[in-house]
Amino acid sequence: MTTNETSAAKDASISNIQAFNEQDVIIKGWLHNKRSSGNIHFLLVRDGSGTIQCIVEKKKVPENVFKIFDELTQESSLIVTGKVRKEPRSPIGYEISVSNIEIVHIAQPFPITPKEHGTAFLMDNRHLWLRSSKQRAILKIRHTIVMAIYDYFNSREFVLINTPILTANAVEGTTSLFEVDFFGEKAYLSQSGQLYVEAACMAFKNVYTFGPTFRAEKSKTRKHLNEFWMVEPEMAFGTLDDVFTHEEGLIMHLVNEVLSKNQDDLAVLERNTDVLKKIQPPFPRIAYSDAIVTLQKKGSPIKWGDDLGADEETLLAQDYDTPLFVHRYPKAMTSFYMVPDPEDDRLTMNVDLLGPEGYGEIIGGGSERISSLELLEQRIEEHKLPRHVFEWYLDLRRYGSVPHCGFGMGLERAVAWLSGASHVRETIPFPRMYYRLTP
Amino acid sequence: MTTNETSAAKDASISNIQAFNEQDVIIKGWLHNKRSSGNIHFLLVRDGSGTIQCIVEKKKVPENVFKIFDELTQESSLIVTGKVRKEPRSPIGYEISVSNIEIVHIAQPFPITPKEHGTAFLMDNRHLWLRSSKQRAILKIRHTIVMAIYDYFNSREFVLINTPILTANAVEGTTSLFEVDFFGEKAYLSQSGQLYVEAACMAFKNVYTFGPTFRAEKSKTRKHLNEFWMVEPEMAFGTLDDVFTHEEGLIMHLVNEVLSKNQDDLAVLERNTDVLKKIQPPFPRIAYSDAIVTLQKKGSPIKWGDDLGADEETLLAQDYDTPLFVHRYPKAMTSFYMVPDPEDDRLTMNVDLLGPEGYGEIIGGGSERISSLELLEQRIEEHKLPRHVFEWYLDLRRYGSVPHCGFGMGLERAVAWLSGASHVRETIPFPRMYYRLTP
Repeated sequence: MTTNETSAAKDASISNIQAFNEQDVIIKGWLHNKRSSGNIHFLLVRDGSGTIQCIVEKKKVPENVFKIFDELTQESSLIVTGKVRKEPRSPIGYEISVSNIEIVHIAQPFPITPKEHGTAFLMDNRHLWLRSSKQRAILKIRHTIVMAIYDYFNSREFVLINTPILTANAVEGTTSLFEVDFFGEKAYLSQSGQLYVEAACMAFKNVYTFGPTFRAEKSKTRKHLNEFWMVEPEMAFGTLDDVFTHEEGLIMHLVNEVLSKNQDDLAVLERNTDVLKKIQPPFPRIAYSDAIVTLQKKGSPIKWGDDLGADEETLLAQDYDTPLFVHRYPKAMTSFYMVPDPEDDRLTMNVDLLGPEGYGEIIGGGSERISSLELLEQRIEEHKLPRHVFEWYLDLRRYGSVPHCGFGMGLERAVAWLSGASHVRETIPFPRMYYRLTP
Repeated sequence: MTTNETSAAKDASISNIQAFNEQDVIIKGWLHNKRSSGNIHFLLVRDGSGTIQCIVEKKKVPENVFKIFDELTQESSLIVTGKVRKEPRSPIGYEISVSNIEIVHIAQPFPITPKEHGTAFLMDNRHLWLRSSKQRAILKIRHTIVMAIYDYFNSREFVLINTPILTANAVEGTTSLFEVDFFGEKAYLSQSGQLYVEAACMAFKNVYTFGPTFRAEKSKTRKHLNEFWMVEPEMAFGTLDDVFTHEEGLIMHLVNEVLSKNQDDLAVLERNTDVLKKIQPPFPRIAYSDAIVTLQKKGSPIKWGDDLGADEETLLAQDYDTPLFVHRYPKAMTSFYMVPDPEDDRLTMNVDLLGPEGYGEIIGGGSERISSLELLEQRIEEHKLPRHVFEWYLDLRRYGSVPHCGFGMGLERAVAWLSGASHVRETIPFPRMYYRLTP
C-alpha cells in the first residue's frame, strides 16, 4: 500500500463483489489461471468465496507490478488491489482493474493441472484437490444439506442428542466393526446411534443424532465409505406412518434447500436440475412382496425372501421420478429390534427409501421398534447377540416402554444424489475407504 | 376413545399447551409423580416437551379410570385425555382435567427415585437418568449451544468441513491417542481436525470443523472426557487479531442465545444468570509474561516458563466478570505449528481463553499457524514428529502458502460453564471417561 489511491481500498470477498462496484478493493487469494495479450495480463484469482478476472494493463501499473505476471505460477498466493468494474461478459458480472499486486508465496509446480488426472492420484492429493471448482461445489452442497438436516428437525422440536462413537455394544453384529482398545476394555466404533436415541426419546419425545458412523467393510463400490455421517431421528409414540411422513418431509426439504441455495454449484457440476425439480410428494410406496412380483415381471430372477441388491433397487426405482418407499421386508433380513407386521408375522414394520437415477438406498433402518420386553429378549437370543451388553437397552422396555420409531439417512449418499456425484468419495472432505486412510 | 367427548380431542405437546386452552387434548407421556386427596388424584405427567399436572376427579370419570391411579408406578407410560384449564398456581399456568387414562406400560420399580443417589449409580443408569429434569435442562442448553455455534460461523460465511475421525497422523504426539486397526494399518482417533481445516481454508478461505474428538488420557478431573465435541474454525489470511475477534464474538453469541432460549432450563438448574448477563465485550487480554507477574503478586510460586495449571487459571480469572484472554505463551509449551512472536522469539502468537467462575480454559489452540515451509520442517524435526505423515500438511506450505489462524473450543466445557454444571460428564448424553464405556 504505497499510493494514496490504494490506501483507501477495502477488503472484499468475491462472492460479495457487486457491493463494491466502482470502488477500490483488496482481494486476497490464489492464482487459478493466467493469460496475456502482451500489453494486458489476465489473472483469474480465486479467494475461496469465488473467482474473478483481474486485468493488469501495462499503461496503468508500475513496471515492477506488470512484471509480477511472469513469476506467478498456478496456485501462487497473492494480494490484488484494484477497482471493481462491471463486465457483462464475466460469469459473475464484474472484473477488477488492477492497480497493485503483492506476492504472498510463489507456488511450486502444482500437481493438479487443468489436464485429466486419475482418481488415485487425485485422492492422494485430496488436500489440494479440494481447491478445484467441482470439489468445492460438492462440499458447498454438503454444507447446505447438513444445515437443512438440522433445520428440518429443530423446527419440529426434535432435540439433538450426540450419541457416542466409542461403544461397548454392536448393533448389527461384530463382523463389520472397528475395534479400539479402551484402557484395556474392548470398544467398537459406533455403526449407529440408534440404541442411544431410543433411550433419549423416552426423555425428550422426539430426538435425533447426527455424526460420524463407521463400518469396517472391505467394499469398494461407489456407495461405500468406512467413515460416514448419519442422521438418525427417533420418535416416542411414533409409528410407521411417522417414518413415512418424516422421510418424505426431510427429503423434500433437502431438495428445496439445495435448489434454492446452490444454483451456482449445481451449474458448476452440470447437474440436471430438472430431475430434482420433478421431485414432489407423495412418494410412491410399494410393499416388499409386491416389489418382488414387479421385479419378476421385469425379468429379474429374484425370489420372495431374497434381499434387494443394487441392481434390483435400480430396476424398481427407474419407473419413478421421485424416491420410492419399499416397506414391510421379510423378518429374516431386518434388524432384531424391528416390530413384526401385526397382519403378517413373516414381515416387519419397516421401510427403506430408494433414490431415483440409480442412486439406490438413501434412507434405511426405518421401522417401528419393539416395545415388548419379552419379544425383544427373544429376538436378541434368536440373533445370538451378547445379552449382557443389551441390558441397559432392555431397561427401556422395563420402565414405561412405549411404541417408538425412527430411521437413518447417510449424509454422503444424499449429497452424492443431489449433487450428481458419481462416487460418495467426493462428497466428504477426507474420505476413508478400504486402502485409503490418508491424507 | 370410547365417548363422543374424547373423540374430538387433539394430540398436544405440553410445551405448547397454551394453544389448547379449554380444549380437549391427548397427552402421551410418562408418570413423573402422583398424589391423592382421596376423591381427587393428581398425576404429574411428563411428555418430553414439559411436565403438567393432570387432575382426576372421582365424580367426573368412570370408576375404572379413577382406579388406574392405584396401578400407576413412577415412569409408567400412559395416554391422558382431558380438557386444558388455566391454573394460576401451576408453574406453566395450565393443568388438565382428565376424562380418560389409557395405560401403555406399567413400569417396574424405577431405579432413580426422588431421593439422592450417588454419581456412579446415576452414571450406570445414564439411559434412565436422562429423564430427570436437570439432565434434560443441561442437554437442552447443549442443543442451543450446538446450534448457536453453527449459526455463528454460517452467518459469517464459514464453510463446514467435517474432518475425519480415523487418521494416520498424530497432531500432538501419540501418547494420548486411541489406536485402531484399519485393515492392518495403524490408525488413530482424531484429537483435532486442525490439520485438515488448514488444508480446507486454502480452498474456501474461512472454514470450520465440528465433531467428536478423542483423548486417551486417564484424567479423572471434572473437565476431562475421553470423547468430546470440538469446534475448530480456520481462517486463511487471518492473524491473531482475527482469533481474538472470533473467540469473543462466538462466546458472546453463545451467552446471548442461552440466555434468550433456555430461561426455563437455567431456572431448573438454579443457574445464577446475573453472572452470565454481566459478560460483555471486550474481554480483557493479558500476556503470559504479565500473567506470571500477576500470579506471583498473588502469592503463587509459579515461574516464567511454567505452564498455567487449573489453580493458576482460577487465580488469574477471578479478578474478572468476563472470560479472560491469555496470549503469547512461551514457545516450549505450545504446538509445533504455531508462529513465533516476531517481537520476541521466545514467545508464540497464540491465545487461550479462560472462563470465569473457575471454569478454566474454554477455548484453546488459538494461534497463527506457520506458513513458512522451512520453519515448519524445522519445528517438526525439533518436536521429533514422524516427518512422512506430515508430507501432505507440508504441501500446504509448498503451493500458495498464506498466513492463517484458528482456534478450538471444546463443546462440553462451554456447556458446563453456561449451564453451571459441576462436571463435564453431565453435559454430554453418554459420557466416555476412564472406566466409563457404558451405557
